[in-house]
Amino acid sequence: MSAPATTDAALRERAAVALPNGMYGHMSTAALGEPYPQFITRASGCRVTGADGREYVDLMCAYGPMLLGYGHPGVRAAARAQEELGDCVTGAAPVMVELAELLVDTIAHADWAMYAKNGTDATTTCVTIARAATGKRKVLVARGSYHGAAPWCSTRGDGVTPEDQAHLVFFEYNDLASVRAAVDEAGDDLAAVLVTPFRHDLKRDQELATAEFARGLREVCDRTGAVLILDDVRCGFRLDLAGSWEPLGVRPDLSAWSKAIANGYALAAVTGTDALRDAVSRVYVTGSFWYSAVSMAAAKATLTELRETDALSRISRAGTRLRAGLAAQATAHGFTIRQTGPVQMPLLTFTDDQDFTLALRWAREAARRGVYLHPWHNWFLSAAHTDADIDEALSRTDEAFAAVR
Amino acid sequence: MSAPATTDAALRERAAVALPNGMYGHMSTAALGEPYPQFITRASGCRVTGADGREYVDLMCAYGPMLLGYGHPGVRAAARAQEELGDCVTGAAPVMVELAELLVDTIAHADWAMYAKNGTDATTTCVTIARAATGKRKVLVARGSYHGAAPWCSTRGDGVTPEDQAHLVFFEYNDLASVRAAVDEAGDDLAAVLVTPFRHDLKRDQELATAEFARGLREVCDRTGAVLILDDVRCGFRLDLAGSWEPLGVRPDLSAWSKAIANGYALAAVTGTDALRDAVSRVYVTGSFWYSAVSMAAAKATLTELRETDALSRISRAGTRLRAGLAAQATAHGFTIRQTGPVQMPLLTFTDDQDFTLALRWAREAARRGVYLHPWHNWFLSAAHTDADIDEALSRTDEAFAAVR
Repeated sequence: MSAPATTDAALRERAAVALPNGMYGHMSTAALGEPYPQFITRASGCRVTGADGREYVDLMCAYGPMLLGYGHPGVRAAARAQEELGDCVTGAAPVMVELAELLVDTIAHADWAMYAKNGTDATTTCVTIARAATGKRKVLVARGSYHGAAPWCSTRGDGVTPEDQAHLVFFEYNDLASVRAAVDEAGDDLAAVLVTPFRHDLKRDQELATAEFARGLREVCDRTGAVLILDDVRCGFRLDLAGSWEPLGVRPDLSAWSKAIANGYALAAVTGTDALRDAVSRVYVTGSFWYSAVSMAAAKATLTELRETDALSRISRAGTRLRAGLAAQATAHGFTIRQTGPVQMPLLTFTDDQDFTLALRWAREAARRGVYLHPWHNWFLSAAHTDADIDEALSRTDEAFAAVR
Repeated sequence: MSAPATTDAALRERAAVALPNGMYGHMSTAALGEPYPQFITRASGCRVTGADGREYVDLMCAYGPMLLGYGHPGVRAAARAQEELGDCVTGAAPVMVELAELLVDTIAHADWAMYAKNGTDATTTCVTIARAATGKRKVLVARGSYHGAAPWCSTRGDGVTPEDQAHLVFFEYNDLASVRAAVDEAGDDLAAVLVTPFRHDLKRDQELATAEFARGLREVCDRTGAVLILDDVRCGFRLDLAGSWEPLGVRPDLSAWSKAIANGYALAAVTGTDALRDAVSRVYVTGSFWYSAVSMAAAKATLTELRETDALSRISRAGTRLRAGLAAQATAHGFTIRQTGPVQMPLLTFTDDQDFTLALRWAREAARRGVYLHPWHNWFLSAAHTDADIDEALSRTDEAFAAVR
C-alpha cells in the first residue's frame, strides 16, 4: 500500500478507521468529491485553509454559524473574558439574563428567551411547548423542510420508527390550499405549525415565502389556537434581527434560533410570547451545557455588533455583488442559471440540470481555484466578505464557468 | 416595591421576566431555596463564587462536567490554541481524528467514535443506531433512569405524547427477572437495552450495578441480537477510563459520553464496535456545532491528563476522605445516614427522611456555610479537590449537622 499523496488523504485514511464512514453528517465531503478538502486546518475572516495549505474564499460560513468572520476580535474577546470568570459551572451566570434581555429587546415577538445547544434542541423544545400549551399533538410541517436530525423530524429513515413521526402532518410550502387540507387532517388535535422563513431544502431552487402564505399560516393559528413556530435556525440574525418574517409583517408565537447567534460558539435559543409563559414553565428540558456562559457572552457581543454596526447591510452588499457578478458571468459563458433565495443565503442552479451534474462540475472547478461553495446546499455570506473578497471569488468562478463550458 | 436586598435577588427579579420561571432545568435552585445562590459569577479550581461574593467548595462540579478543576490551565491552553486555528468552520479539523483515535485507544469496547453536543444527542444516536442495526424498535430501559430530556426519554409528561415513548419497555434496575419479563414483552421487536452504569436516579439512594446484573444484560443482548447501550454520560471518565462497566468485566456495544469528556467544554460522543459500523454509516445525525474543534482539543487534553497523571485516584481519594468524614460526623451528632454510590459520585441521605426534609435542611445549612452540595441529586468530586478542600468542606458540614440537630 502506498503512502497517501496528500495530508488531507492521510487524514481521510485515519478517519476511515476512527470515524463512521470517515466522516458523517453535513460535514462529509464524500458527495462533493475531490477537490474538496475534508479537513480544514485554519480559518480567519472569510477564509479557510485546507489541510494541504490551499486557501479558500469561504461562501459556506460553517453552514451558517459564521456571521461576522472567523475569529472576530470583539466576539472572541467577550468570550475569553467570560471564560476567565467561568463557563459551565454549578449555576447560571449573570450573562444568561443579560442576553435574554437583549434577545427580548431585539426580536419583535419575544417576551422571554431560553437556551439550548443545537438547532434541533430549539425546534424540539418549541414543539414540546406548543403541545404543552394546547394539549394537542399534531404538528404541521412543509414537506421536505429540514427542522433537525432527531428521530421526530429526521428526513432520513434508518433507525427512525413510524411512531417517532406519527403526529407530523405535511403541507406544501407556499401553498395555502395544502395547509387547509393539513389542518382538516389534524382535526381537533392541532398543536402547531412549524415553518422555515423561506424554502431552503436541499437540491432544489430556494423559494421565498409569500406574504400571503405567511399571513395565511398566522390566520390558521389564530383561528385554531395552534402555535405558530418559526424555525429561524438557519436564517436567524442574517436577514432581519427582529425575526426573519418581520419584513412580511407576520410574527410567530415561538421561534427557534441557533447557528449564527454567537458567531460560531455553540448556542441555541427559543423565544416566545407571554401567552406561552405558562406552557414553557411546565416543560422540562435541560442539558449539561445549556447554561455555559462563554457562548452567551459571545452571543451578546455578536448581537451588539449586529445592532450597532452596518454588519447586516455589508452581508447584503456582499451577496448582491456576488449575485450580479455570477449573473454576468453565466450570460457571458452562455449558461442559463437561476439564483434563488435571499442574497445573504444564495444558491445558484443551472437550468436543465435536474441531477445537479453540471452544478457539481462547476462547484468542483471553483473549489480547485480556491472558492468554497456548494452545488446543492444554500451558501451563506458574512460581514467579513469585502468587495475585494467577492471580486476575488468572482474571478475564480469566471474561470470555473470557462472550465465547464 | 422595594429594591432587592442582594445582587442575586436583583438578578432573579430580572430573570423572572426574561427567562421562563426565572430559570429552568437542573440549574434552577427554586426547589433548594434560599440560601442557594441562583447565579454564580466566578469559578476556579473546586470553588465557585455566588453573585453576592460568597465562595463555596463546590461538590457538584457543574453537575458533572468539571473533572480536573474549573479553568484547568492545560485544558484551557489546548482549547485556546485550537481556537486560534478555528472552531466551528466549513469542514472538520484534524483534532477530530486525533481525539477519535484517543477514544478508541482508551475505551475498551470502542472501535470508532463520533461526536455530538448533548448527552441526550449521544443517547438518542445510540438508540437510532441500534434500531438501524437490528431493524427493530423496542428499547428496554430501567424504570426511573434518566437518559436525557428529549420527548422520547423525558421523565416528565408536559408536551410529550404517548407515541414518543411507544417503544420503551421498562425493567427494574438490578432485577434480572424484570429484565426477562421486559424481553418477553418486547418479543421479536427488541432493538436495544439502554442502561446507566449504576442507579443514580433523583431522590433515592444510589445503587451500584451487580456483576450478575451487568452480565445478565450482556447475555440477553448476545442471545437476542439486541444492542447493549451503556449510558456513560454522567459517570464517564470519572470512574474508569476504559468504561464504567470495565471493572465488572462487561463491555457494551455502544456507549454514550458527554459531561466530563472535555472538562466543561460542550461535547458529547458515541463509541461503538466494529459490528455496528454498517448501521452507524446508514444513520443520518448531525448538528451545526458537532464538529467544533475547540471542544475536541479540550477533550484530547482532558483525556491525556487522565491517562498520564493520578487525576482519577485523586478524585477517589477526595471522595473517600469526604465519605469517612461525613460518616464520623453523622455518628458524633447522632444521625443515622446512608452514603451510596461510588465515592467519586456520592450521595448522603438520612434514614426516616422519605420526603428529604432533613436532607434539605442540612444541605441549606451547608450552603450557608460555603459548601455547595445537593440534598437529592448525586454529588461529584474532582481532581481539584485537595485534602485541604475536603477538610474545609467537612468543617462546615460538621457545623451543618450541629445546626440541624
